[in-house]
Amino acid sequence: MILWSEVSLTEQAALLTRPAVSQSEVILDATQQIITRVKENGDQALRELAAQFDQRDSARLQVPVDEIKQSGSLLSAQLKSAIEQAYANILAFHTAQQPTDIKLETTPGVICELKYQAIDAVGIYVPGGSAPLPSSVLMQGVLAQLSGATTVVLATPVKGQTPISPAILYAANLCGIETIIEAGGAGAIAAMAYGTETVPKVYKIFGPGNSFVTMAKQLVSQQVPGLAIDMPAGPSEVLVIADERADAQFIAADLLSQAEHGADSQVILLCNCAKIITQTEQAIEEQLTRLTRADTAKAALANSAFILVDSIEQAFEVSAKYGPEHLILQIDDAARYVALVKNAGSVFVGDYTPESAGDYASGTNHVLPTYGYSQVYSSLNLLDFYRTYTVQTISKTGLKTLSNAILPLAEAEGLDAHARAVSIRLERLNNE
Amino acid sequence: MILWSEVSLTEQAALLTRPAVSQSEVILDATQQIITRVKENGDQALRELAAQFDQRDSARLQVPVDEIKQSGSLLSAQLKSAIEQAYANILAFHTAQQPTDIKLETTPGVICELKYQAIDAVGIYVPGGSAPLPSSVLMQGVLAQLSGATTVVLATPVKGQTPISPAILYAANLCGIETIIEAGGAGAIAAMAYGTETVPKVYKIFGPGNSFVTMAKQLVSQQVPGLAIDMPAGPSEVLVIADERADAQFIAADLLSQAEHGADSQVILLCNCAKIITQTEQAIEEQLTRLTRADTAKAALANSAFILVDSIEQAFEVSAKYGPEHLILQIDDAARYVALVKNAGSVFVGDYTPESAGDYASGTNHVLPTYGYSQVYSSLNLLDFYRTYTVQTISKTGLKTLSNAILPLAEAEGLDAHARAVSIRLERLNNE
Repeated sequence: MILWSEVSLTEQAALLTRPAVSQSEVILDATQQIITRVKENGDQALRELAAQFDQRDSARLQVPVDEIKQSGSLLSAQLKSAIEQAYANILAFHTAQQPTDIKLETTPGVICELKYQAIDAVGIYVPGGSAPLPSSVLMQGVLAQLSGATTVVLATPVKGQTPISPAILYAANLCGIETIIEAGGAGAIAAMAYGTETVPKVYKIFGPGNSFVTMAKQLVSQQVPGLAIDMPAGPSEVLVIADERADAQFIAADLLSQAEHGADSQVILLCNCAKIITQTEQAIEEQLTRLTRADTAKAALANSAFILVDSIEQAFEVSAKYGPEHLILQIDDAARYVALVKNAGSVFVGDYTPESAGDYASGTNHVLPTYGYSQVYSSLNLLDFYRTYTVQTISKTGLKTLSNAILPLAEAEGLDAHARAVSIRLERLNNE
Repeated sequence: MILWSEVSLTEQAALLTRPAVSQSEVILDATQQIITRVKENGDQALRELAAQFDQRDSARLQVPVDEIKQSGSLLSAQLKSAIEQAYANILAFHTAQQPTDIKLETTPGVICELKYQAIDAVGIYVPGGSAPLPSSVLMQGVLAQLSGATTVVLATPVKGQTPISPAILYAANLCGIETIIEAGGAGAIAAMAYGTETVPKVYKIFGPGNSFVTMAKQLVSQQVPGLAIDMPAGPSEVLVIADERADAQFIAADLLSQAEHGADSQVILLCNCAKIITQTEQAIEEQLTRLTRADTAKAALANSAFILVDSIEQAFEVSAKYGPEHLILQIDDAARYVALVKNAGSVFVGDYTPESAGDYASGTNHVLPTYGYSQVYSSLNLLDFYRTYTVQTISKTGLKTLSNAILPLAEAEGLDAHARAVSIRLERLNNE
């Protein structure tokens, strides 16, 4: 346990410093090679990569639409309705985010509009790894569905003979996704960025992944003009602020639910009561014994911090410095403190709001800025699937009025053709 | 003049291909060296760079606040009120973009909120170059002012003994900017990204610039965790759609006002009438003779296209393929065609709506996606100075209901600690 006020500023900074994420040259080169292969050889390259990395020979690259449509029948009633319940809540919360155009007459005869256009073609990457992630499909697919994007591509890895989990297919089906590509890693990202015979080219690529996927997203976003990616990805993290009346078992469970994500996950507890911190440490030891992913959780806990603060207010200051992806408030009258929140991705208010509620089903999005990006990046929201543009419509009178601003400014900036485009019109008006 | 329908698909693609932007290793290395110098030596590095590139010895790095406040007195009444008129319109249109939080009960006992937080510290780069650009200050400064960002840094280069133009200082003053840094190029970007003794560190850097500035923004956004940049920058461009009744003099003036920006600017005319195209070509020759930046404009016109289309509808299809930064509609009943617009940064509707109106004073923002990014990136708007985050507050009943979704999904994803965080709370409720 660390007493925040008694450690030096340097130690405080060190406590809030994330484990460095390796961006080795090796990963860079390997990723670039894969991208080049897919750019040049399309489907053939994807098949070679499937054989090379996924133990698949002459792999099929796309899931037949029938398999997607019928996937529900392969699920237990319980899991099926769980996916449907999560879908409904995510749909409701993101439907409330539908944008509306803005129209304003800034000056008589000068009408300015801000309009929203759905991004036409989007790609969603869903990592495979240790377990299928239907929730990742919902958290991105619902938004693509709401935006009305005309092309939605979902790519997810297939290992050997194991087919894509029906839970993933069913979640995609609810989101109306019909293009599911059986490819993973940098190859899948490159395929969506450049397009192949089978994979449609997209304009924006969403989704988390391992260091090759992250590197590939970064590289293609620099190499393909007109391509965007969602946000920089980093290890997952949670910060819990708890007070003297908090339940140590709840705190322990929340910290562990983050720690089990990966060895590079980071968990931080800020508490104003030493007793609760000690109890939490004990509760973690005890709960760890029951977890299948205990080793992962232990590794994550190794680079984590349990900090005793002077006050709850101080805890919020420390949290703002750290900028946690997830912020859990297990404090008395927690709602009253939400106004103090700064630089958090998603906030969980009160003893009965665990992070896993937001990870799956409350309706909020679980794609969140991490690694300190929460001071500047947004949690994934519907507007990430739209772009804005402006429209102006100016009457003859409107242009006359504006010319008093345009002409002196164009002159000051030494751009006479800018002035000329206005004066030539004024001349025409004067001759009318 | 090219007849669109009669050239091959390859030729069509070539016509809409932008001149490649050089991202040479030389620029990369030089920029990285400057960034490292500023990161390591702060103000001292900035002074050395000022001596090396701007002919300034022991340069001051910051404009005294008094100079900013008094700058208005150095302007002609005409320019002063021009800046004020532009400021008022830009302020009005961006005030209309103020975001509002969203709150929704997705399930009884489950309240989800989407909240907006202004980005705390922002940096605005204003290029120097051939002319001072007060309009660039307004187009970014007004948004920072509206967001209420606590730290707003403006950086602009100073050459030799020539002080910063009072027009720039006055525009900054209207926007309430008090931190103006006298530094340009990659050094200024690095200073805002890492912070120096004089320059506050910011979280997001906005603004156009030369290839060193663009490269520096890209590099620091990869190297500084938690730092974002506005959007990829490219050469400026305009596409005009005109019909048989359009005024060739107006078209020529609009094309030239874009062409004079830089030799790498691109201008495209799509017209359904060969006569108008010929007249426009003649009008350009004639107007060119009166421009001080005629050589720049001629160079730009060299990589531009005058295309005869079968119909106005076809023109909109071609425009959507190209994705112009600026789209001007000089067609009959132009408003009726706005619904056909796709992939444009800003649209100018009707014969009396020249691009320069939006560049300076209509109220729309002139920072726009270019180089084909308008299919996925937004024109600069107030939300670029905000981030969103989510908040969920769940009651005991709410958690019971959600558990039917969370538990099966956590199990399907093999994350038992996620399930445990819920079940441990349900156990507590059952014992109540």
